Amino acid sequence: MNAAEIKSGIESCLKAQAFDAKQPKHLYEPMAYLLEHEAKRVRPVLAVLAYRYCGGQNLEGMIETATAIELVHNFTLMHDDIMDHAPTRRGKATVHEKWDTNIAILSGDALFALAYPLLIKNFPHQASELVNFFTKVVVEVCEGQMEDMDLAGSATGGIPAYLEMIRKKTAVLIGGSLGIGAIAAGASKETVNKIYQAGELMGIGFQLQDDLLDVYAAQADFGKQVGGDIIENKKTYLLLRAMEKADRYRKEALLNWMQHQGNATEKIAGVIQLFNELEIREEVEAKISGYFREAETVLNSLQDEAGKAELLSYLEMVFQRKK
Amino acid sequence: MNAAEIKSGIESCLKAQAFDAKQPKHLYEPMAYLLEHEAKRVRPVLAVLAYRYCGGQNLEGMIETATAIELVHNFTLMHDDIMDHAPTRRGKATVHEKWDTNIAILSGDALFALAYPLLIKNFPHQASELVNFFTKVVVEVCEGQMEDMDLAGSATGGIPAYLEMIRKKTAVLIGGSLGIGAIAAGASKETVNKIYQAGELMGIGFQLQDDLLDVYAAQADFGKQVGGDIIENKKTYLLLRAMEKADRYRKEALLNWMQHQGNATEKIAGVIQLFNELEIREEVEAKISGYFREAETVLNSLQDEAGKAELLSYLEMVFQRKK
Repeated sequence: MNAAEIKSGIESCLKAQAFDAKQPKHLYEPMAYLLEHEAKRVRPVLAVLAYRYCGGQNLEGMIETATAIELVHNFTLMHDDIMDHAPTRRGKATVHEKWDTNIAILSGDALFALAYPLLIKNFPHQASELVNFFTKVVVEVCEGQMEDMDLAGSATGGIPAYLEMIRKKTAVLIGGSLGIGAIAAGASKETVNKIYQAGELMGIGFQLQDDLLDVYAAQADFGKQVGGDIIENKKTYLLLRAMEKADRYRKEALLNWMQHQGNATEKIAGVIQLFNELEIREEVEAKISGYFREAETVLNSLQDEAGKAELLSYLEMVFQRKK
Repeated sequence: MNAAEIKSGIESCLKAQAFDAKQPKHLYEPMAYLLEHEAKRVRPVLAVLAYRYCGGQNLEGMIETATAIELVHNFTLMHDDIMDHAPTRRGKATVHEKWDTNIAILSGDALFALAYPLLIKNFPHQASELVNFFTKVVVEVCEGQMEDMDLAGSATGGIPAYLEMIRKKTAVLIGGSLGIGAIAAGASKETVNKIYQAGELMGIGFQLQDDLLDVYAAQADFGKQVGGDIIENKKTYLLLRAMEKADRYRKEALLNWMQHQGNATEKIAGVIQLFNELEIREEVEAKISGYFREAETVLNSLQDEAGKAELLSYLEMVFQRKK
């Protein structure tokens, strides 16, 4: 089973939940709707690859466990979209837009609950460990989302707080997916920790890449509007670092652009010029490489079991993306 | 350990979670705040009593498991209050009023997650069974809340739909608490089912009692405003049954009162007069007795183990309330 086949196993397992056939409709239809959106299923695929790397034999069973991770990921999307007032997700109306906020709250709650039985179904001997680990991951994701909202509303909050926030909000679930695969396979605590840690490092690098692409991607390759973060004055790593590095005059210029009410293209160009003068791109690229190198060091310290090459190449493919 | 001592064990365990000391504050303070409200802790006490009745010896451990039920109960309150736009809960501002909706969503999510490790902590051999049972209960509670919202917005929806809604929204968690105690004690499937069923029947009776008390309680004894449901035109069992029983003229009179814009005291008196003419009170009282008798029959069919008398007397005390 290669990564593409694992992904299609996840898709089948998602369909087998048959949320579109359950009652009451307003509770289950939004789950089916959100899960039908085209998606890469990175997290569950990682979980299955980590499971196989750690010697797990019950791939079919692990696919169900991995699907639980995708359910939780989608539960967080459903609730985050309410909190962020997001009108669309993956090009389609968000659940709270298509239905309403109450339905998005409640459907998300039930989706989250339904993940737990699926998580442990095929690994009863690891049930406690899986539940504890999984919960810790989800709670950190919630902490990350709260820190994100706190930072957005605060004038302070520097780079360390930003990195800690993206660690929790994004990277923990990447690392957690790998960790769950390792736990299900009965790996040692040391292996679980290492594989988790590598995933977390890659997750942070991945999110920084996301910040970078938002500014520097070629529009033709990029799913969203290039410069979207700049238009919204989003406190990304790039903006925070630019504010740190800028001299008095450039700081004032940046703050002026942030209050700019006119043409968005001009604003984007103006901010990018400042980023370029401050060599933000080079700096962030170096930082991302640093995270990936650190992750690779951890991964290389893992034993050379069957499945390691495939796990590594999938990680590389997913996280070294250019768009 | 009597019921009062169990309750104080639950309170200690809730305090031991130390939510007020955790970061980020906006995630954890609302949990501490809501859990500090004075409450009867009926569900966790029932779980511990059921555990003891089923021969469980690790009462301290069971108190932690039972506390997980209280966490989930409070998670549902936090989210239901958003959906119902409730300004107060137990006499204090609701979480979304005191903080905001986003905080109430996210804090509730994390509170729910945190229940799972606590649920299984001391009963690793029953971990899978506890997680599956608990999840089924929570999902039914979500279904009940959705059905409640669906019914509130619909012109149709008769008594069977109403009874099914209150079964899920209220009774399932009462029965579920008893069931969790039985599962933790390693009781047979038959005992778990019976004790669950008895709790569910009592829970339905309890909710109907609530509908009745809202209209017929003595104001001095009653925590809320008597007649609150009537003012809000809430589709309670009483109103649904009155609409069924009423002849053409009384139906019109009821509908007129429901559209009454003037004095609330007059509206309450007018609706109560119609209820009285239709003998709604007597009928609902008989129905409630029916549920309690049915529950007692199930409970009496349980074996006479130590702790049965205390379980029964607590159930009687809690559910045969007059205020």
